[in-house]
Amino acid sequence: MMNAYELPHRRYNPLMDEWVLVSPHRNNRPWKGEVEAISEEHIPSFDDACPLCPSNKRANGEVNTNYPNTFVFSNDFGAIMPISANMTELSSQSLLTRSETVTGECRVICFSPDHSKTLAQMNISEIRHVVDTWKQNYLELSAHYNCVHIFENKGAVMGCSQPHPHGQIWAHQHRSSEIEKANTSQEAYFHQKKSPLLDDYVQMEIKDKSRIVAENADWLVVVPYWAKWPFETLLLTKHSLVDIGQLNNDQSQTLAQILSELTIRYDNLFRCRFPYSMGWHCAPKDLQSNDHWRLHAHFYPPLLRSATVKKFMVGYEMLAESQRDLTAEKAAQLLRDVVTVHYSLETQ
Amino acid sequence: MMNAYELPHRRYNPLMDEWVLVSPHRNNRPWKGEVEAISEEHIPSFDDACPLCPSNKRANGEVNTNYPNTFVFSNDFGAIMPISANMTELSSQSLLTRSETVTGECRVICFSPDHSKTLAQMNISEIRHVVDTWKQNYLELSAHYNCVHIFENKGAVMGCSQPHPHGQIWAHQHRSSEIEKANTSQEAYFHQKKSPLLDDYVQMEIKDKSRIVAENADWLVVVPYWAKWPFETLLLTKHSLVDIGQLNNDQSQTLAQILSELTIRYDNLFRCRFPYSMGWHCAPKDLQSNDHWRLHAHFYPPLLRSATVKKFMVGYEMLAESQRDLTAEKAAQLLRDVVTVHYSLETQ
Ligand SMILES: O=P(O)(O)O[C@H]1O[C@H](CO)[C@@H](O)[C@H](O)[C@H]1O
Ligand SMILES: O=P(O)(O)O[C@H]1O[C@H](CO)[C@@H](O)[C@H](O)[C@H]1O
Repeated sequence: MMNAYELPHRRYNPLMDEWVLVSPHRNNRPWKGEVEAISEEHIPSFDDACPLCPSNKRANGEVNTNYPNTFVFSNDFGAIMPISANMTELSSQSLLTRSETVTGECRVICFSPDHSKTLAQMNISEIRHVVDTWKQNYLELSAHYNCVHIFENKGAVMGCSQPHPHGQIWAHQHRSSEIEKANTSQEAYFHQKKSPLLDDYVQMEIKDKSRIVAENADWLVVVPYWAKWPFETLLLTKHSLVDIGQLNNDQSQTLAQILSELTIRYDNLFRCRFPYSMGWHCAPKDLQSNDHWRLHAHFYPPLLRSATVKKFMVGYEMLAESQRDLTAEKAAQLLRDVVTVHYSLETQ
Repeated sequence: MMNAYELPHRRYNPLMDEWVLVSPHRNNRPWKGEVEAISEEHIPSFDDACPLCPSNKRANGEVNTNYPNTFVFSNDFGAIMPISANMTELSSQSLLTRSETVTGECRVICFSPDHSKTLAQMNISEIRHVVDTWKQNYLELSAHYNCVHIFENKGAVMGCSQPHPHGQIWAHQHRSSEIEKANTSQEAYFHQKKSPLLDDYVQMEIKDKSRIVAENADWLVVVPYWAKWPFETLLLTKHSLVDIGQLNNDQSQTLAQILSELTIRYDNLFRCRFPYSMGWHCAPKDLQSNDHWRLHAHFYPPLLRSATVKKFMVGYEMLAESQRDLTAEKAAQLLRDVVTVHYSLETQ
């Protein structure tokens, strides 16, 4: 007798107001298609040709400092700039050709001077520097811009053009589409229930247990009930934080700890530098009240069944809706079942 | 003096109610990252090991017919099945863990017995068979299901597990998320303007000309004003069709012609088997009135600058909103500028 959740069903994402199609029975089908090459060749700690390594020169001629921990610079080819198109020059604003100007700035954050490392291979105090750098840059940029996106693309399969560990910050005046959606949903829920959506969600997941991947005093990581990507996770604050600028000393430390645990679990799952895009969703600055908002980060990793088999969000997913092949509960269990010592440190 | 559209701006997609960030100045940045291998090795017309070639046996033991044109079978590993989970078995339906059952079916459509061909290399009468097969299967499935998705994933980079030319149909009772959005937008526009959104859009684009890629008596192809993917196109009916079951003989023929032209233009742009996901958006069957709806197809191709450099929709795109590097107008011009004889037929 099959469990209801082993048959096709749809789940609703109340945070982003969208659905996902779940087809757990499809897990066992044969698959022959693109195989991602694993590039586990030796990566050196320093690379002459890397524009992110300490003391190297970047394309625009600037020279990086000989930084000991993290290093931040303005993106030389940012998608957003402090100057923007002149609104009146933009073509006729009809219902069918609406556009608007954009101002903001893009920064790059090097996570470590060591070219070969990723968060999963950095120790807690090294990761703590990344957390502090995020916080400081958030505080600087959110003083000028409503919407600050802190994110990391990890791995060539996620379009990351540089193996050197780094993330980005894109900050701008307008609310991005995903922040707008997350805000609308959290606001509507708060209005109805008088408590924040993500507070209730944290409570529910702690009680349920089946989707928990990692937990400590201040943070909870789950494969959310409505996860799209096979091993997608949601990192949630247990407190009333609404942005990363509010982290206190303890919360910064426990955040470094849980980031270490999560990224090690990811790497150990398929014994590879587990690729993902991750990013923080902070309350936009222009809210009248942000009582409904809770700080959270999304991890969207593409791998499905091994270091070389990824999930393609194509065809049906692009034209109809996201589809996944294993349940969120199963994914969480697989991530819980691995050890928390990084595979590269195993004694042979 | 820079044109307003050469600076960062956002454009609104009134069909899907979403925004895209446009950063045309970013086109010239250096890029070093994943390079897709071009697999232009000789592909044979028949492959013993291909489960889609005529007369071959598939994984489930069934044998394909020796089909001369197109061939349709029920997907042996469909994501959706006629049976579904029992609603009452699904976990507590709270605001935070909502789910619903799904019923439907998945079919595979082989476009040609020739293993080596793609739409771009098939002649008009061969493509006409594909159009007729789409229509017939649409009519069959829409008699039972509200929402019929006809689509094609082309190329390994689009998760296509088989080079043999084929597409898929996933049909189901519920309206998928993208159909729901397209319906809501078209309905709201119709209510306000008393004319269909896509009729007005067709008129506007024909007058403007700058985004047109191909046109004939019954069809228009544009890079839509709000395109996300670098060379995304929208194929629009010039008539009052709401689904692919309504095609008459002439419209089927001109559709085959414009599909040939579009796919050849795509292939010629970077001289490769241009990958994409494409699919039809037909009016769902359960509408009270479908006067507001117009039949259309989306083409979402991932390539950005060459046969080996694709656009990654990662990081910012996943966590904030879609971002593109060249304007829709520039993309349309590049697609207009290529010849309409397939590069493989060029005399050396
Ligand atoms: O069924 P296929 O062609 O093997 O699978 C492909 O198309 C499906 C529908 O777009 C996707 O869900 C899969 O991720 C993709 O690999
Ligand atoms: O700026 P990068 O790291 O070269 O570029 C990468 O991240 C950006 C932000 O997510 C994306 O727009 C690009 O498609 C991706 O290749």
